Amino acid sequence: MIGRLNHVALAVRDLAAATALYRDTLGARVSAEVPLPEHGVTTVFVELPNTKIELLAPLGEASPIARFLERSPEGGIHHLCYEVDDIIAARDSLRAAGARVLGDGEPRTGAHGKPVLFLHPKDMLGTLVELEQV
Amino acid sequence: MIGRLNHVALAVRDLAAATALYRDTLGARVSAEVPLPEHGVTTVFVELPNTKIELLAPLGEASPIARFLERSPEGGIHHLCYEVDDIIAARDSLRAAGARVLGDGEPRTGAHGKPVLFLHPKDMLGTLVELEQV
Repeated sequence: MIGRLNHVALAVRDLAAATALYRDTLGARVSAEVPLPEHGVTTVFVELPNTKIELLAPLGEASPIARFLERSPEGGIHHLCYEVDDIIAARDSLRAAGARVLGDGEPRTGAHGKPVLFLHPKDMLGTLVELEQV
Repeated sequence: MIGRLNHVALAVRDLAAATALYRDTLGARVSAEVPLPEHGVTTVFVELPNTKIELLAPLGEASPIARFLERSPEGGIHHLCYEVDDIIAARDSLRAAGARVLGDGEPRTGAHGKPVLFLHPKDMLGTLVELEQV
C-alpha cells in the first residue's frame, strides 16, 4: 500500500536558523520560506536527491506544531509522510486493521495541494504518520 | 554535502508486531530479522521505493536504544541517516561549524558495513543524525 517516503517533517522554533543549518552546515539545497497560513506553519523544503525534509515553524495562534514545540523546545521529528495511490482505499484498509485516522477521517488538502490524512501515533509505533495521495 | 536520506530508524519494543504493521497493515516489503549483536539491535529493513525504514529492537544488555525506549515506551523515530561521499571531510566541516560528533569522533563500521558517525541532537534541531559514507 505505502509507496515512497514523501518527506520527513521536522518541527523547529527558529526557521531561519534551521534553514541555515541545512543549507550552510549540511550543504543541502533549500527552498525559500513558504507561509501556509491554512496549515498554521511556515515551511522550508530541503531537497535531497531521493526525498524531502520539511522544516516546519509555527505560524499564527493555533499552529498544530505549537504543542509539540512546548514539549520539545529544541524541536524534533514531527511526522513521516508516505505516498499512497488511493487515499480512501488506504484509509478503509487501515481502519479495518484497527488503525485510528485523526480528525473526522475525511482527507483534507495538504501542504502540497493533494489529499492527506494523519494516522494516530499510538497505532504507528509512536510515530505520527501522514498519508498523501499522489 | 549531505546526499540521499539513507534511512529513517524507528526504535520499537516488539519487533514482530512492528514488522507485521509495516508488512500487513501498511503493505510494505520487509526483510527478515537481522541480529546485529555488535550494534546491540535486531533490525528489520522496510524497503520503500526511494529509501528504507529501519525497525530497531534492543538486543543484549547494553543496547543503545534501551534508554530511548525507557523514555518512549511506545517507540518512536530514533534517528535519520544521511549519505555523504567523504565522512572525514564531512566530520571536519561539521566540527568547524560547531556541530558535535558523538563518541571519539572516529568513524566506526555501521549496520551496513560502511563508515558512520553520529551528530549530537542538540546541534541538529533535536534530531539524532547519522552520517554514512557510501
